[in-house]
Amino acid sequence: MSKSSDNPSGGITRRGLLGAGAAGGLVIASGGGFAIGKSEAETPDPAQESVPFNGVHQAGITTPAQDRVHFAAFDLTTTDKAEVKALLKAWTVAAARMAKGEPVGPDNDTPLVPPQDTGEAFGLGPSSLTITFGFGPSLFNERLGLKSKMPAQLQPIPALPGDELDPRISDGDLCIQACANDPQVAFHAIRNLTRIALGTAVMRWCQLGFGRTSKTGAGQETPRNLMGFKDGTANILNDDKEALDNFVWADSESPDWMQGGSYLVSRRIRMLIEAWDRTFLQEQEKVIGRIKDSGAPIGEKNENDPVNLEAKAPNGGYRIPMDAHIRLAGPGDNDQEKILRRGYSFTDGFDTVRGQLDAGLFFICFQKDPRIQFVPIQARLGKNDRLNEYILHTASALFAVPGGVEDQDGYIGQGLF
Amino acid sequence: MSKSSDNPSGGITRRGLLGAGAAGGLVIASGGGFAIGKSEAETPDPAQESVPFNGVHQAGITTPAQDRVHFAAFDLTTTDKAEVKALLKAWTVAAARMAKGEPVGPDNDTPLVPPQDTGEAFGLGPSSLTITFGFGPSLFNERLGLKSKMPAQLQPIPALPGDELDPRISDGDLCIQACANDPQVAFHAIRNLTRIALGTAVMRWCQLGFGRTSKTGAGQETPRNLMGFKDGTANILNDDKEALDNFVWADSESPDWMQGGSYLVSRRIRMLIEAWDRTFLQEQEKVIGRIKDSGAPIGEKNENDPVNLEAKAPNGGYRIPMDAHIRLAGPGDNDQEKILRRGYSFTDGFDTVRGQLDAGLFFICFQKDPRIQFVPIQARLGKNDRLNEYILHTASALFAVPGGVEDQDGYIGQGLF
Repeated sequence: MSKSSDNPSGGITRRGLLGAGAAGGLVIASGGGFAIGKSEAETPDPAQESVPFNGVHQAGITTPAQDRVHFAAFDLTTTDKAEVKALLKAWTVAAARMAKGEPVGPDNDTPLVPPQDTGEAFGLGPSSLTITFGFGPSLFNERLGLKSKMPAQLQPIPALPGDELDPRISDGDLCIQACANDPQVAFHAIRNLTRIALGTAVMRWCQLGFGRTSKTGAGQETPRNLMGFKDGTANILNDDKEALDNFVWADSESPDWMQGGSYLVSRRIRMLIEAWDRTFLQEQEKVIGRIKDSGAPIGEKNENDPVNLEAKAPNGGYRIPMDAHIRLAGPGDNDQEKILRRGYSFTDGFDTVRGQLDAGLFFICFQKDPRIQFVPIQARLGKNDRLNEYILHTASALFAVPGGVEDQDGYIGQGLF
Repeated sequence: MSKSSDNPSGGITRRGLLGAGAAGGLVIASGGGFAIGKSEAETPDPAQESVPFNGVHQAGITTPAQDRVHFAAFDLTTTDKAEVKALLKAWTVAAARMAKGEPVGPDNDTPLVPPQDTGEAFGLGPSSLTITFGFGPSLFNERLGLKSKMPAQLQPIPALPGDELDPRISDGDLCIQACANDPQVAFHAIRNLTRIALGTAVMRWCQLGFGRTSKTGAGQETPRNLMGFKDGTANILNDDKEALDNFVWADSESPDWMQGGSYLVSRRIRMLIEAWDRTFLQEQEKVIGRIKDSGAPIGEKNENDPVNLEAKAPNGGYRIPMDAHIRLAGPGDNDQEKILRRGYSFTDGFDTVRGQLDAGLFFICFQKDPRIQFVPIQARLGKNDRLNEYILHTASALFAVPGGVEDQDGYIGQGLF
């Protein structure tokens, strides 16, 4: 391979050049009176945008959700703590390189060895790739001698009403959430990290997602989920430092090694879309509690109007029904149950058993303590949510996501080892 | 829903506005001496770009390949020709609307009926959506009385060397290829067309793909497949009218109702990526016959340098090995086997049996007669291709893709009925 193979995206690619030209043009345009010139001028080619890997927190939690996710869970095939440590070190180095758009390793041009990088992302740019690592409850057992270091917050999620979980696509010792604006970049990350794990850990399950289903950045529009409704209107945004500190980042109740971290819950929520699609618009809106077109709470005008749970309809009942999803999914009476959602739509082909597309929401959320956030919310939803007629929770997982790697020589989860 | 629900993408969206601003700015920049200004000025927000549905040929064949595909095959659940005709009419109307970014049907705001459109693509724009319909050999049997109208070119593909086909994800009476730059737009198309088919046809299988693997438009860069190699360098391009006429469009040997059409072969080609990833770079390059980094034929400098099959290596053997993929996949001695490829990468999660990612190439090609194009090529490849150690053909399908709908009142396949 050429001398540039060490960093194929470091040079100015053809796409990058065009992007720079556009920006330059708009600086001039802005001077000519285009009010929006500035923001456009600051927008480079999205394929060349990158998100720093190093920091107090891992990237991919408060990073405005990219368009695609490739999420994977792994099981250890070793009981040797040193090998796990070596894997986490190798993963850290590789992830930091890929976040910059570099190949996973530098040696890709020696004829008589396998290339370190598999190559399918050469030339695609970082595409805002974030790689977020987590540790499942099963990591903290006798095998590795880590039992005493398990956070109380990582207590496995109890059976919840309505669960129809498939253990083969649930849980795991380790997880990687790879998000990017290009699915090939996200795939490339998971594939190469899986390859690095060979001999230490094997993939247990993975899930692809597209079309983010939560508003996570202040500048983002609220996307629609596969039920056709705007999803994530009331989510915590990445510029709300107070809410992030109160609800997302591990607090002093968590062990030292989790400081700067958070707890991730994922749920594969299958939507029974054929039943949903045959439902009257009015019923769909009562199920959700919002107007399909605007996203406004029932009875209000605009998406961001406050949700008034006390308002009555002419017939005397609540405008937002007692079993509407937004009533039950809200942050609770004591307002302590807020979570940071980061979900994606998925479709996994055709389910010949049910005779319909296997599609739905791959729900991901971050919080400081799932025991007092995700678990009570889902217990309430699983029992009473009018939406339950149209969904199935088919998989579940919980991971402790440690703080970020601040030091260039550090590695993910270093405080644990 | 609001009055605008009839055409949510018809108004100027926030994204659309920004795009228009960028273009306007660049007209000025272009005047200031930016040579690339013009092409940028003509590039609107990609989400708002649309491809006309009506035309002599169906869209999605020579349309420069979009970034995503959602391909679905269907089986009829009726033996009534009138019902099939009605389905094709309804599909035509819906596809033409969706190609413009409109909801699949206009009625989405009546409270006491199910909305005609499922809603998840509201606000996403057409995203260059193309919807391409095809008819499988099994459509032409006694059931519908169409046996005499079956093109000879649609003769089912014979068993080929190396086939490991799964019949559950092969073949089908009808197919839809939905391509778009946004996966949610492609999903939305397949979902709504599936819904319209209820009572007449049911989905048999579907396949998602990303990261197009063939260069199909003169302005496109050659993408890389999941083996990390550039794929589609020598493909027929959409501005090569002579090659399209010679190799892609049905000729006078095809029935009248196929004029303007083509024949589609799809193959789900699983890559054994773990074995591939452990292979030396030099061996990977010998398997393909090209240099991984540059895409040049072995011994040449640049991707588009001619493939010299006679050139010898210092050891006296051919530089491009006798069993290299590009040697065997070439257009044959008589040069009549050229095909228009339009493949996509896929990954369908983790295969617990083989312990690796289930990923590869969803190969799609168009040609005037598969019997003298795809079949001899694949017979040669299946027997001798050095690549066979690293791939498995797991599914196959063949469809007659009729000409486009030129008349606003026409429908797909009208000439057949």
